[in-house]
Amino acid sequence: MAPGPGSSDKKNDKCCESESPVYVHNPHLDGMKEDVLYHFNLGTSTHDLPTMFGDVKFVCVGGSPWRMKSFIEYMAKDLGLENAKSEYPNICAGTDRYAMYKIGPVLSVSHGMGIPSISIMLHELIKLLHHANCTDVTIVRIGTSGGLGLEPGTVVVTKQSVDANFMPQFEQVILGKTVVRSTDLDEGLAEELLQCSKDLGQFNTVIGNTMCTSDFYEGQARLDGAFCSYTENDKQEYLTKAYKSGVCNIEMESSVFAAMCKLSGLKAAVVCVTLLDRQKGDQLNSTSDVFHSYQQRPQILVGHLIKKRLQASGFYKS
Amino acid sequence: MAPGPGSSDKKNDKCCESESPVYVHNPHLDGMKEDVLYHFNLGTSTHDLPTMFGDVKFVCVGGSPWRMKSFIEYMAKDLGLENAKSEYPNICAGTDRYAMYKIGPVLSVSHGMGIPSISIMLHELIKLLHHANCTDVTIVRIGTSGGLGLEPGTVVVTKQSVDANFMPQFEQVILGKTVVRSTDLDEGLAEELLQCSKDLGQFNTVIGNTMCTSDFYEGQARLDGAFCSYTENDKQEYLTKAYKSGVCNIEMESSVFAAMCKLSGLKAAVVCVTLLDRQKGDQLNSTSDVFHSYQQRPQILVGHLIKKRLQASGFYKS
Repeated sequence: MAPGPGSSDKKNDKCCESESPVYVHNPHLDGMKEDVLYHFNLGTSTHDLPTMFGDVKFVCVGGSPWRMKSFIEYMAKDLGLENAKSEYPNICAGTDRYAMYKIGPVLSVSHGMGIPSISIMLHELIKLLHHANCTDVTIVRIGTSGGLGLEPGTVVVTKQSVDANFMPQFEQVILGKTVVRSTDLDEGLAEELLQCSKDLGQFNTVIGNTMCTSDFYEGQARLDGAFCSYTENDKQEYLTKAYKSGVCNIEMESSVFAAMCKLSGLKAAVVCVTLLDRQKGDQLNSTSDVFHSYQQRPQILVGHLIKKRLQASGFYKS
Repeated sequence: MAPGPGSSDKKNDKCCESESPVYVHNPHLDGMKEDVLYHFNLGTSTHDLPTMFGDVKFVCVGGSPWRMKSFIEYMAKDLGLENAKSEYPNICAGTDRYAMYKIGPVLSVSHGMGIPSISIMLHELIKLLHHANCTDVTIVRIGTSGGLGLEPGTVVVTKQSVDANFMPQFEQVILGKTVVRSTDLDEGLAEELLQCSKDLGQFNTVIGNTMCTSDFYEGQARLDGAFCSYTENDKQEYLTKAYKSGVCNIEMESSVFAAMCKLSGLKAAVVCVTLLDRQKGDQLNSTSDVFHSYQQRPQILVGHLIKKRLQASGFYKS
């Protein structure tokens, strides 16, 4: 579904040519008196979205609400934008579906686990950015994953998100028919993130393919779910095939994230730390200190990118 | 995948014949020194699961953590099991992935939105009930949904969960291959719930099929997502086909819930209230008071079932 004549980007006509708007592709939206973003507890009639969100240039999304709060606290500190109380209210406080935080041009939103959960959030986020007339928005998913052939703690920046058969595509069912969408991510942004990791010199970062599955246990060839009908050998064979096809890590949201961001013109990246090497095990049984330290790596990397970009634009002086 | 010779139900051998255990079907579990239920922040080495959960007879699951807390408060009050402070701690307080509450024989667990999110929770819940040696467990998902041809506020007890082509099956990808699982639910339990609604006489309840989708917007033929490439007519045609096939409501978790509960021998039901009639609209824009009152209906219905069962067993005297 390419941007067509029916695409609804009227509100962005006022943008100067060099600015890239956030596209919705839905001719029905223009005819609606109001748009209720139900799962955010926000809406065009109840909230002044351009004033609240018009300055957003970076959106960071991740599964866990706690991690997304911690990200905004980290960014506030890093950018010297802390407020007196260092408290950042949850913009979606009226619902428990997602959590959302903002500091300056940085928005942080949780998305829960799995493709359907992140897809609801992205539909409403893309409409929010559209209603707020945002331009030139970069979006990054920060997350955790299982690694293949990598030391735990390694950060993977996704080149392509692939399905359980290692194909770079996302299948979506619309009106009962399967539609296939591309899962390409922004190459330049991935390279920029790799350079950020080199600048930092704190942990190892690689660019590679990410397998996106709809199940954590049987869908990722784990031997420790409630059900398992295959052997350790079957598991290793499957993971080796994945590894040989270029898969560096496995998670549960990247495919629809890549597909929807591409459709909406958002420059997007996926940055996930590997918590374990899946060829060596399935259980997540390191100490919580180790996991906590690993989980900070994507946020440190994306934080560095944002700071560098803001320095270059003159928004922020180091 | 039927219960096979490799099924790991050793711990339940001690149960008397009339008691039905919770089956895991995974020969690898017996060889594990410990089992970390990562997304619950619980484990067999760190927690005494039989003591904590051995008396569980009813499990109620739902998307929203707030709703599942409210359910346990409601049950505590209804069963006269309130503690002095009327405070019920979140058993999974160490993680923000799921929330879990318990009062007497009733466990209440949140599962987030969508098939992958509830599937992670169910793998770990089934293992938890197995490790705790629970028997004769009834499980009910309480949720919200879009209705077809029903007055908003009607409660639907699911007969069969069907996919986007109205087939009563759940497709799961294991080691890159598609496995098809049955989505039958317990007929007797559904009839019992219908009777409970008649006892109560507070709202309308029907038994019918529930369509389970992987997307809330395009996947449910909504016209108000960020993307929409079909017309109002296309939408109505699709929903009419669904209605004619016997679909009463649409939600996002019932198929994998039905499939996994059937595999594990849990007697399961899905009870969802309809928030709107999808043939008349897409947006959820009633007042929050109306939604709040609708959302209480599944909990009232399941609460009545639990009370009735406990009265019959002599656990609870009215």
